[in-house]
Amino acid sequence: MVVSSPDIVTVLQALSDPVRLEIVRQLAGCDGAGELSCGQIEVPVTKSTASHHLKALAGAGITAEREEGTRKFVRLRRTDLDERFPGLLDAVIRG
Amino acid sequence: MVVSSPDIVTVLQALSDPVRLEIVRQLAGCDGAGELSCGQIEVPVTKSTASHHLKALAGAGITAEREEGTRKFVRLRRTDLDERFPGLLDAVIRG
Repeated sequence: MVVSSPDIVTVLQALSDPVRLEIVRQLAGCDGAGELSCGQIEVPVTKSTASHHLKALAGAGITAEREEGTRKFVRLRRTDLDERFPGLLDAVIRG
Repeated sequence: MVVSSPDIVTVLQALSDPVRLEIVRQLAGCDGAGELSCGQIEVPVTKSTASHHLKALAGAGITAEREEGTRKFVRLRRTDLDERFPGLLDAVIRG
């Protein structure tokens, strides 16, 4: 894990962007293992911009990334976030 | 009221600053009528910077301001925020 104890300002900054919020919502809503491959995430921006946003989310400790061959999978660090900032993620996903 | 229905991105952007978060916490923790005069808010920035932050919070619909003579009073728009984004303010104040 890159960030073990993200602070609230970092997390709020990372969440306060419409594209990143959309990524978080898609990750929160996905079935199965709770992860999506980068290709499955649908956002109205270029691949390189999406990549930048994914990096920002991971850097803030909101998501974790896993590589499998040439594919990258992303999941929400929900347990960590819920423990550190109870209620925040739910509030943001609903908002 | 300046903003009747603030959107979540605007609210998150306004909250994602350490000084603004501190102002929100002081307002959340204050007794009585739930409002503080601008002079009662203690933040480690100049008066003009504090003023800028207060304006950002009001603009995002997080606070409401009231003038009484030459003094300005600020309060959290807690009911509005709790209704629009349940749990968000509590999560951020605790965080």
